[in-house]
Amino acid sequence: MKKEQYEEMDRIFHPCNVAVIGASPVADIATLALMNTKIRDRVYFVNPKYTEIFGRKCHSSILDVQEPIDYVVLVINAAMVPKVIGECIQKGVKAGHIYTSGFSETGLPEAIELEKQLKEVAKGKISLIGPNCFGVYCPRSGLAIVPESSQEEGSVGVIAQSGSVAESFCYYGKTKNLRFSKVISYGNAADLDCPDFLEYLADDPQTRVIALYIEGSRDGVRLKQALSYAAKKKPVIAVKGGLTESGKRVATSHTAQLTGRPEVWKSLFKQCGVVQVNNHDELVNAVMAFSHSPLPKGNGVSIMSNSGGFSVIQTDLCAAEGIEVPKFSDETIQQLRKLVPLAGTSIGNPLDAWPVFSKIYEKEGSLADIIRIVASDSKINMLVVQFDQFRYIRRALKHEAGKHMKTLIDVLLKGCEHCRDVIGKPVFLCVVLDPYSEDDEDRANNLMMKRVFEQKGFPVYPALDATVKALSSLYRYTQLHAHKR
Amino acid sequence: MKKEQYEEMDRIFHPCNVAVIGASPVADIATLALMNTKIRDRVYFVNPKYTEIFGRKCHSSILDVQEPIDYVVLVINAAMVPKVIGECIQKGVKAGHIYTSGFSETGLPEAIELEKQLKEVAKGKISLIGPNCFGVYCPRSGLAIVPESSQEEGSVGVIAQSGSVAESFCYYGKTKNLRFSKVISYGNAADLDCPDFLEYLADDPQTRVIALYIEGSRDGVRLKQALSYAAKKKPVIAVKGGLTESGKRVATSHTAQLTGRPEVWKSLFKQCGVVQVNNHDELVNAVMAFSHSPLPKGNGVSIMSNSGGFSVIQTDLCAAEGIEVPKFSDETIQQLRKLVPLAGTSIGNPLDAWPVFSKIYEKEGSLADIIRIVASDSKINMLVVQFDQFRYIRRALKHEAGKHMKTLIDVLLKGCEHCRDVIGKPVFLCVVLDPYSEDDEDRANNLMMKRVFEQKGFPVYPALDATVKALSSLYRYTQLHAHKR
Repeated sequence: MKKEQYEEMDRIFHPCNVAVIGASPVADIATLALMNTKIRDRVYFVNPKYTEIFGRKCHSSILDVQEPIDYVVLVINAAMVPKVIGECIQKGVKAGHIYTSGFSETGLPEAIELEKQLKEVAKGKISLIGPNCFGVYCPRSGLAIVPESSQEEGSVGVIAQSGSVAESFCYYGKTKNLRFSKVISYGNAADLDCPDFLEYLADDPQTRVIALYIEGSRDGVRLKQALSYAAKKKPVIAVKGGLTESGKRVATSHTAQLTGRPEVWKSLFKQCGVVQVNNHDELVNAVMAFSHSPLPKGNGVSIMSNSGGFSVIQTDLCAAEGIEVPKFSDETIQQLRKLVPLAGTSIGNPLDAWPVFSKIYEKEGSLADIIRIVASDSKINMLVVQFDQFRYIRRALKHEAGKHMKTLIDVLLKGCEHCRDVIGKPVFLCVVLDPYSEDDEDRANNLMMKRVFEQKGFPVYPALDATVKALSSLYRYTQLHAHKR
Repeated sequence: MKKEQYEEMDRIFHPCNVAVIGASPVADIATLALMNTKIRDRVYFVNPKYTEIFGRKCHSSILDVQEPIDYVVLVINAAMVPKVIGECIQKGVKAGHIYTSGFSETGLPEAIELEKQLKEVAKGKISLIGPNCFGVYCPRSGLAIVPESSQEEGSVGVIAQSGSVAESFCYYGKTKNLRFSKVISYGNAADLDCPDFLEYLADDPQTRVIALYIEGSRDGVRLKQALSYAAKKKPVIAVKGGLTESGKRVATSHTAQLTGRPEVWKSLFKQCGVVQVNNHDELVNAVMAFSHSPLPKGNGVSIMSNSGGFSVIQTDLCAAEGIEVPKFSDETIQQLRKLVPLAGTSIGNPLDAWPVFSKIYEKEGSLADIIRIVASDSKINMLVVQFDQFRYIRRALKHEAGKHMKTLIDVLLKGCEHCRDVIGKPVFLCVVLDPYSEDDEDRANNLMMKRVFEQKGFPVYPALDATVKALSSLYRYTQLHAHKR
């Protein structure tokens, strides 16, 4: 992207003064979101129905606002949009986003005409995001989509054709340990489109990984260029919504996109070096992996686990995702035999060494040593530590269980940090937690473990399939970009 | 199964007096589990190391126990097992399970020889479960695998070659709303094998659905007969562990089974009318579906949801699982138009009608009406209600949110009961909950909704992919057994 283009895009995301046109004091998320960030004192309200909102003057038209406005948010009736955009242009506004739906996505001829009209009014005079979108979350400038999101800046950039997909990311700061540079919901893309955002985030120094949810494109050639451009600069992980016939039908009624055949998209992503994942959950989990992990140098994983039966299922799951669970070397096995008791364990990969977790086996330091041994095996390129043991620990140690958990976490952390920071192999934590569990003590101890590992920068997942799929996305990225190294 | 055979098997699961050989007062799960059920007063301890356990006499040999014993649990060193089983036979014990591992699963020649020896000692004289297994959970008799499981009886039968898989089911009473007839962990299957348990549960009137986790078989012909026999009588849902090459290697070292090619297993299950699922989570979720839902008459689903973007992903997900998300009939759309506001919604399938949930739209009763209309559409054979709305409700209604939730649940329940009980179509709830969420209010309200629907007998899942896969297993069953109707 040329310097001037980049700067122009960057200004859109970092406005000085913002006006909400159609603002309302009641349950209007766009207004509430902005009033919750540092931009709040530079937000102006426009709505002829009110004279005051949040104790602040409400203007009847954008033309009545004295101060210069560089970004508008439109939450007005669809029919009014072209006229109001005309007024914004007259006011000198350079950019904005149109929250309002009821345009081409409805499939109604008059609504399609309305969007055409909007394009004509705006063309070359104002940069627009939407319509039918939630706009922008940018912690650095204070633009926001929901009132609840973190105001901390981060390095994840999200481009989503769906408002709800974009919105869901805004909530993930806490539970998924993600911080964002920009989250963009772009809806029908009447003006600015996915390639514009891709090129911008590719050049944005704050953004280190890009998550993309796309339903379709009006210009395949341009999209391909932008995907390639971005994926050369940083990891791009993408979901194509509407890959099946029924999905396509729904996508068409959602953002009025031309959707195309699944094979075409698959090959497009592959050619461009973009990691394709299947759905929203996989997208979020992959972004966590890219945000918090070094890249693996091969596809061999070791899973430290607690059950023979689950080991088999786990191994099948890895194989299905292109991840291998190789046999340990003889040397590794010999070294492990000294530390892992024989009864009820399996000194193989997956490593079923639960007594070591549960302190039924006494040598407390050995857990870190076990990880060091496994991590040193040349066939092992990455490590998954699955923890699902609190109930065993509680059963064995009763009221001492909580205290033991703290020691256990310390020891485990030492091993994991050695593996990641000294040996340089990715470590993923799987702290298993059933969402519906009402065992508060189990929950509290699992969350404690999750938080500690998260603070130390490890990706932590609540279930193994999510963990393995995230690992797989990381490995697939190294494959797609193998020629670079 | 012949009447005498059935009665013989049934006696194994309903012993009068049980002896734990190798019992210990410390962290011995087998003992703790039995001491927590109604069988506790009929449990006898054998261990030459102790004279007393739990304030009760501990015998030095099974031969010293005065009372007749009909079931033994062996938690002793592997090398001792054949000798002790000999003593049990001498004592007149008819059955038991061998917890101890260290037999053929180790791959060591002396351990394989030991298992052979055990078989020879036992043959025709005592029925054995295991070795290398967790045994039996049977709430009706009081046999138990873990101390924490429910003592309520139910209709789910589980046969698992893996102890941990069996054990995990024992914990699911509460979070998954499952109650069990029998859960059987059978390990190396030196004596009683999967076909024996399949035939028994097929004839067991208490068992209405059978979940199977199998790693391999020594007698494919017999297994096929037993699977067919069982699947003709009730739904059988199966996971084959070790379908991939690496998985096979792990399975071999886990329970020493011959594993076979994936296609062979796939075709075996299909021919026998068994619903195959991919992993443990899918198995549990499918069992919930079969336990709590009528069968669908076709594969058309309607998803009531809250987002355009997620609707597309959801539709793709359904299509991938063989479930269709058909367009509503014109009549359905006309009727819905009267009840669902236009702005920001999508009167299509998936139905994006979130304002109706959030009470931003005022007609409170309409939610039940909407469900009735959708459920009456002839193309719709089943319904998924996805709830992920509490944050919107809280934002809109603040401290009134909790009160509104109660009303919302009532109204929703009316609609769902009408769909299931009057129209006769399955309804699945998806009450979305992030396991790591620390938003206690959101958690509490979601759990409240989950509990209410669970109490009314609906299957409730925390994520949509789990919901759709469970629906799919139900539909696949109707396909496999279509000739019956």
